Amino acid sequence: MLQPLFTPSVQHTLDVIGIFVFAISGALLAVRKNFDVFGIAVLAEVTALGGGLFRDVVIGAVPPAAFTDLGYFITPLFAALLVIFLHPHVERIQVGVNVFDAAGLGLFCVTGTTKAFAYGLNLTASAALGLATAVGGGVLRDVLANEVPSLLRWDRDLYAVPAIVGACIVVLCIHYDALTPFTSGVAVVVAFVLRLLAMRYHWRAPRAWNRRSTVTEE
Amino acid sequence: MLQPLFTPSVQHTLDVIGIFVFAISGALLAVRKNFDVFGIAVLAEVTALGGGLFRDVVIGAVPPAAFTDLGYFITPLFAALLVIFLHPHVERIQVGVNVFDAAGLGLFCVTGTTKAFAYGLNLTASAALGLATAVGGGVLRDVLANEVPSLLRWDRDLYAVPAIVGACIVVLCIHYDALTPFTSGVAVVVAFVLRLLAMRYHWRAPRAWNRRSTVTEE
Amino acid sequence: MLQPLFTPSVQHTLDVIGIFVFAISGALLAVRKNFDVFGIAVLAEVTALGGGLFRDVVIGAVPPAAFTDLGYFITPLFAALLVIFLHPHVERIQVGVNVFDAAGLGLFCVTGTTKAFAYGLNLTASAALGLATAVGGGVLRDVLANEVPSLLRWDRDLYAVPAIVGACIVVLCIHYDALTPFTSGVAVVVAFVLRLLAMRYHWRAPRAWNRRSTVTEE
Repeated sequence: MLQPLFTPSVQHTLDVIGIFVFAISGALLAVRKNFDVFGIAVLAEVTALGGGLFRDVVIGAVPPAAFTDLGYFITPLFAALLVIFLHPHVERIQVGVNVFDAAGLGLFCVTGTTKAFAYGLNLTASAALGLATAVGGGVLRDVLANEVPSLLRWDRDLYAVPAIVGACIVVLCIHYDALTPFTSGVAVVVAFVLRLLAMRYHWRAPRAWNRRSTVTEE
Repeated sequence: MLQPLFTPSVQHTLDVIGIFVFAISGALLAVRKNFDVFGIAVLAEVTALGGGLFRDVVIGAVPPAAFTDLGYFITPLFAALLVIFLHPHVERIQVGVNVFDAAGLGLFCVTGTTKAFAYGLNLTASAALGLATAVGGGVLRDVLANEVPSLLRWDRDLYAVPAIVGACIVVLCIHYDALTPFTSGVAVVVAFVLRLLAMRYHWRAPRAWNRRSTVTEE
Repeated sequence: MLQPLFTPSVQHTLDVIGIFVFAISGALLAVRKNFDVFGIAVLAEVTALGGGLFRDVVIGAVPPAAFTDLGYFITPLFAALLVIFLHPHVERIQVGVNVFDAAGLGLFCVTGTTKAFAYGLNLTASAALGLATAVGGGVLRDVLANEVPSLLRWDRDLYAVPAIVGACIVVLCIHYDALTPFTSGVAVVVAFVLRLLAMRYHWRAPRAWNRRSTVTEE
């Protein structure tokens, strides 16, 4: 059995930080799409809790943590309030938001992978669910806002790869019986730094080979 | 433990009415989007059963009632048939449809909250799931029809707020041990009347404060 | 209790073939939408596994087979790789892909219905879930690609009907206690051939009656 990686209160604090920054990104998109204040709150909740909700439903951890922990539910509402009243300022510090979002990405891919493994999934499936936990909220956000998920678009900086790397480090550590708070922290930091570098240097993934032969630019 | 609010047959009748009116709204959108008869049936089913399906999967009540009760499954097909053959008439009585839809909203937010609490969720989470039960089908309908969910748009009359108020009345009643068929009925009626007033007087929610400073109208 | 229809290894091989061809269709759409290689892989996975994932979550078979069987997870990645490097050739053999997709449709509607019944759902609900298994992945594919699901559009050849017929044959066989590998195979072949005929002769479903009276062409 896996030992808890962090003390519960540390784990909870890290989760709430990740939820908060994801909620900010959902609320900002809602403002850009001209939604009303309830739409902003809904999109903040979905972005922040969607990935973990999907993971918990898939592994059978029902009711999901998103609905049993009051802090998880309140945090996105607080983020939505901040954006509603301060969004010009929040947009001005977009760089800061992106840094926090990268931290949330690193954190969620690690905790998602760990939780999936603790519920009996194999290593590959655990890594896949860790990735889904980290990126699922953002995909739901874009689907509700009626946009192509930025996760899938070629003209966005790498987002999935840092989460995949973080999740893979975790499953390698589990495989070699080396998962400790320290190695987990390393996985979080590696995913976090990779995402920061991808944003700084605009790393992008290639598209299909020989693409131009049959497909036109849209 | 909660007592059942209504006798099973009364509860079932109320549920079927709510499912029917939601299915009508899904089928009408499908006709407007030019879907074929199977698309109309699918959108009617999804709109009518989607909210309850989401709630049941989240609270672990599987298989969901939508798949175990034949009446829940047949009702949307009947609504789809009506719309396919009579949709000019159904559209002409759009006001009537809206009134029924408001009734479904009031009913589903109350029964959704009650069922979530009966499955062990805390009061806040129960209210959130009651809201999700009431509005979830409509959101799925709009996502499948490739439109921005009308729940989120600022230029639509208040829809979430009546459901939130109804769900909050239920959790307050639970908290003060006062949930009876009478108080539940009051919650249904309050949500219903609020939605009717919102449609009559075009109540809308504000958007983000100081919005125009950075965001252009779309 | 239902007997297993096929030996496990035969069943598994058939499943993997169905997953593979659905993944090809997801990956091809991703290339057309100009997604990067990770977007192509994600859309291949979602298209191939989405229908079965939905079915398993609804019937409470968690963790779903998509996450417990390594072969189910790897197969779509292989299909994505093929499309990334060979997509002009894959597109040239679109007819071949459509034939395989029809085979996957027939297979999934039968195995989906059988599995749902084995988990205790009634006959109607089992047929509905069989249909959802067969078409769910394609609907998720189109939603993520921000398009109206081709399942719902009137200008596409019949897709749901063959799956409905296949699922209905299975539940009739169950009802009359006649479900054997042979009758299941008949159901698969009937759905498969119906889909091929629908594509060959462009069978389409009608839209709502008297549609032009109030709705304009889009």
